[in-house]
Amino acid sequence: MIRERIERLRKEMALNDIDYYIIPTSDFHSSEYVSDYFKCREYMSGFTGSAGTLVISAKEAILWTDGRYFIQAEDQLKNTGIELYKSGNKGVPTISEYLKNRIGDDTAKIGFDGRVMDISFVKRIEEKVPHAEIVSDPDLVGNIWEDRPALPANDIYIFPEEYTGANAVNKLLEVVRRIREEGCSCHVVSSLDDIAWLLNLRGSDVTCNPVFLSYLFIAEENTVLFCQKSCLNPDTKKYLDDMGVECRDYNDIYSYCKCRFEEQSGGKDKQKILLDPDTVNYRLYKAFSDCFEPVLDTNPSTILKAQKNETELSNLRSANVIDGIAMVKFLKWLDEYKKDASGEKITELGVADKLLKFRMESPEFKDISFETIAAYGYHGAIVHYEPDAESDIPVERKSFLLVDSGAQYLKGTTDITRTIAMGEVTYEMKKYYTAVLKGMLDLASAVFPAGTAGANLDILARGPLWQMYKDYNHGTGHGIGFFLNVHEGPQNINWKIGKRFGNTTPVEPGMVTSDEPGFYLEGEYGIRIENDIAAVKKCENEYDNFLGFEILTLAPIDLSPVLFEDMSPDEIKALDDYHRMVYDRLSPYLDNETEKWLKEYIKH
Amino acid sequence: MIRERIERLRKEMALNDIDYYIIPTSDFHSSEYVSDYFKCREYMSGFTGSAGTLVISAKEAILWTDGRYFIQAEDQLKNTGIELYKSGNKGVPTISEYLKNRIGDDTAKIGFDGRVMDISFVKRIEEKVPHAEIVSDPDLVGNIWEDRPALPANDIYIFPEEYTGANAVNKLLEVVRRIREEGCSCHVVSSLDDIAWLLNLRGSDVTCNPVFLSYLFIAEENTVLFCQKSCLNPDTKKYLDDMGVECRDYNDIYSYCKCRFEEQSGGKDKQKILLDPDTVNYRLYKAFSDCFEPVLDTNPSTILKAQKNETELSNLRSANVIDGIAMVKFLKWLDEYKKDASGEKITELGVADKLLKFRMESPEFKDISFETIAAYGYHGAIVHYEPDAESDIPVERKSFLLVDSGAQYLKGTTDITRTIAMGEVTYEMKKYYTAVLKGMLDLASAVFPAGTAGANLDILARGPLWQMYKDYNHGTGHGIGFFLNVHEGPQNINWKIGKRFGNTTPVEPGMVTSDEPGFYLEGEYGIRIENDIAAVKKCENEYDNFLGFEILTLAPIDLSPVLFEDMSPDEIKALDDYHRMVYDRLSPYLDNETEKWLKEYIKH
Repeated sequence: MIRERIERLRKEMALNDIDYYIIPTSDFHSSEYVSDYFKCREYMSGFTGSAGTLVISAKEAILWTDGRYFIQAEDQLKNTGIELYKSGNKGVPTISEYLKNRIGDDTAKIGFDGRVMDISFVKRIEEKVPHAEIVSDPDLVGNIWEDRPALPANDIYIFPEEYTGANAVNKLLEVVRRIREEGCSCHVVSSLDDIAWLLNLRGSDVTCNPVFLSYLFIAEENTVLFCQKSCLNPDTKKYLDDMGVECRDYNDIYSYCKCRFEEQSGGKDKQKILLDPDTVNYRLYKAFSDCFEPVLDTNPSTILKAQKNETELSNLRSANVIDGIAMVKFLKWLDEYKKDASGEKITELGVADKLLKFRMESPEFKDISFETIAAYGYHGAIVHYEPDAESDIPVERKSFLLVDSGAQYLKGTTDITRTIAMGEVTYEMKKYYTAVLKGMLDLASAVFPAGTAGANLDILARGPLWQMYKDYNHGTGHGIGFFLNVHEGPQNINWKIGKRFGNTTPVEPGMVTSDEPGFYLEGEYGIRIENDIAAVKKCENEYDNFLGFEILTLAPIDLSPVLFEDMSPDEIKALDDYHRMVYDRLSPYLDNETEKWLKEYIKH
Repeated sequence: MIRERIERLRKEMALNDIDYYIIPTSDFHSSEYVSDYFKCREYMSGFTGSAGTLVISAKEAILWTDGRYFIQAEDQLKNTGIELYKSGNKGVPTISEYLKNRIGDDTAKIGFDGRVMDISFVKRIEEKVPHAEIVSDPDLVGNIWEDRPALPANDIYIFPEEYTGANAVNKLLEVVRRIREEGCSCHVVSSLDDIAWLLNLRGSDVTCNPVFLSYLFIAEENTVLFCQKSCLNPDTKKYLDDMGVECRDYNDIYSYCKCRFEEQSGGKDKQKILLDPDTVNYRLYKAFSDCFEPVLDTNPSTILKAQKNETELSNLRSANVIDGIAMVKFLKWLDEYKKDASGEKITELGVADKLLKFRMESPEFKDISFETIAAYGYHGAIVHYEPDAESDIPVERKSFLLVDSGAQYLKGTTDITRTIAMGEVTYEMKKYYTAVLKGMLDLASAVFPAGTAGANLDILARGPLWQMYKDYNHGTGHGIGFFLNVHEGPQNINWKIGKRFGNTTPVEPGMVTSDEPGFYLEGEYGIRIENDIAAVKKCENEYDNFLGFEILTLAPIDLSPVLFEDMSPDEIKALDDYHRMVYDRLSPYLDNETEKWLKEYIKH
């Protein structure tokens, strides 16, 4: 099936004289998760991971993806004729390097749908193969995809200030102030979470992300929201009217620039427009650069959004109590399951479903924040494994079960991973489990001066594994939105300097980040332990302004695989303090039996 | 006296219509230490620190210096009319920002001696005040400095391959290969340690640094050394002749570019020349950019020189045995001094002198590698304090004595700091001493994958202090030359990303770096413990290529102020392992009594 689709695409390419056609994993907004309409790369390759780019030429078909998906992609690409390029591995060229190698000094035509490509990516290609012709109009996959799903078009609703703690007008004013500092008179926001955050609106056009398809044009004089008008309910419409935000149709953004330009300057001087090269799509960039002088920089809202205010933090604490109650019930249920040696066996999907049911017991639950990873045994080593009907396996009473999940509440977004020993595990497994746990605790206990970035901190999480000459092939931490995307920038925790979403971004008070070291043994098992942590002020004195972390996530950590002799007294204390806090916060909401079960975790 | 000199300079400025005159701390080669001829900033300000820049206008005189020198500069600038600007502190403008603030949109003439200014610095000024006129010819301090010392002109001698482990021709060929990779046909090296390393020559034109005043022009066809010809002994002359290195007079470099240009191209096409913007002086840059197209990048020799080869590392181990023997004798002598409560008192200078005598007992000793810091009590808090006749104080039998020193041997350069409790110290002092020690040990014990940089590692050294909301105002580690400068790039260990000498430079096997956390309480005491560490390969496996450190420095660490209850079992083991290694390596060379004294350190 995949082979046939590729052949059909090659015919389309030939009709358009295109030598290389690039199919990234994106919607028109550089979203991480995309709705079904945008799943062109999956349609063409069969690979279902959340990240990857397919490049097709007359002779080759190559998929690039990153360390999280190497094992999964190898599996899903079998018999498709598509070759896997492991991004980031030694000797593996990037896509632009690959194009340079193949094209060399020849002429070539490179094509893609410019609406699903970001500017930075196209610029890298232009640099490497400056003489190649680039066409960004054709949506060739669209031409051959017969049953393509429709664009999502769901209700856009108001997200009240009791949750956000800040009103949209002030947010817009702050953005205007910041773009003026950069010498710009206007700004287009294309990233959906930025738009939702700026306007205090939410939607449900993207799986697990409460956002809606839209673009936002911001200038001192006016603000225009480009969205599917059918999605605006009367309240939202009035709210936007009252704020003075004009609404236009979703697709009109591409022509708006031209109208606006003629209206403003009579076609003479070019005004400066701020565009985020990592989120504005290439076709939009082309359209706006005809009429404006683009200034490429990160959206001002990205850093503003990352620093949660007191209302948001306080809501997040509540959300984590709700999520923690569900997690405790779930973990207690798993504990009983594993002790019931002769009981019926449940599969990974059954586990994910059970957890969803516990979460759904709360009326505050809105959605999961990403597809639940319930990975038993060797599936745990596939970093972003999600069980489906085909892959689903029973959870035995031995080895590790890794459950990485999260939820969307009006009071915030959660993300938590626990790894549970489902029975006896080997000494080696305990060694690695303990190293991962130490890393997680050491990072959360960090104290550091203002200005410190994720690149500075990562060694705390990885150090215990590095000491054993081991590592994990993913970042240690990502930013987390507030009732928004579970992955957001700009900060992250990763030692490799220079990666996207800047790990050199200083940690600021209010930033919420995951803390999730792991260890994976291919074909055997996976271990990951994850808490969400919020940066908080600790002490300001003559030396510096010191920050640290507050742990938001509330759920016990399996102690049965812990080798306490491998932990320092400080680490043992941090673990015990954590369980005491979990107990103190959650016990008022638990029945007697569950409360007793939870209390067992603070015996150490 | 200082006031009078400044007034005389202002007259010179008025004669030349100069509004702002900049006096940095540099020779013609951006050397860190400069010979007396170049001490214009010290002559004009009275401030003797190794780093600082003076800016003089008709109304103001301001000195910028960094955290190492705040206390010292405050002291030395008293009654000079010169204001101190603390570089790096919040709200303190850089020099270029200051000029921008003062000049604004007015016209102004900024002057300096272009031979003592680096390109990067001038470029920053040009960016901030683009309309100001810049004159780089006048050496106004030279005009008023009557008894100015002469340029140093000492013997240049061959440094044999048994020490360097690599011959000069191969080094030059590698540089040629690298400049061609950057599209350049030639290259000027201006940094003295790079020239000495490339040619396997040494000299003594700069205090403590075995280098000689020179420039090196490198092209595929020819290599030209510009130096004071009187310094070339017959052996060196022949050695250079045999290698095909032409010698020209030191100052001819400025006119050589023009001759060469005309000779090569008949004055037509500009060839590309590689110039290091951080070490090539501005006047040289101007001279070469008239005839060549400059490509600004770090000297290729800088990274090559930093990665010591097996011969150099093996020699360094021997050098550290020699230095360790002297240190053990010195520390044992100090131990006896402190126990002899009624004995005569010695001053800081006496301590430094004693240490020098122990070092001079070895015939291999060539020089000290920097001025010895023997800082007792409150002097220890002045990070780069060097005792002189005026500041010298007696060393009492209480508080801390901090001794930071190093030596030059043909087998390598050393740098070591020990802090000794000269009697009873308070619990608080022990707390900080132990935190500093923990940081030093934790960094030296690090294991990390290839690609890791100083910015990633620094938290290991600072972490124990940060946990106490304390810090130190200097880098944790600097690169160390091989029988060369005690400070060399490109790598360093500092969490602040983006500082000069790139702490984002990956640690490579063979790089030698200091590991020297500290703690300073102004007016009270200073603590610093420093070992030199060499990066070594640890383990290459399917996860990564892991590196770690080998400790080179061999000398006991005072255990009397250590709070073992504050240390983790791993740290206690690392400390004990270290003392065992010191004992094993040094004891064969010690007399019975000294050997017994040293053995006491491995009891824990």
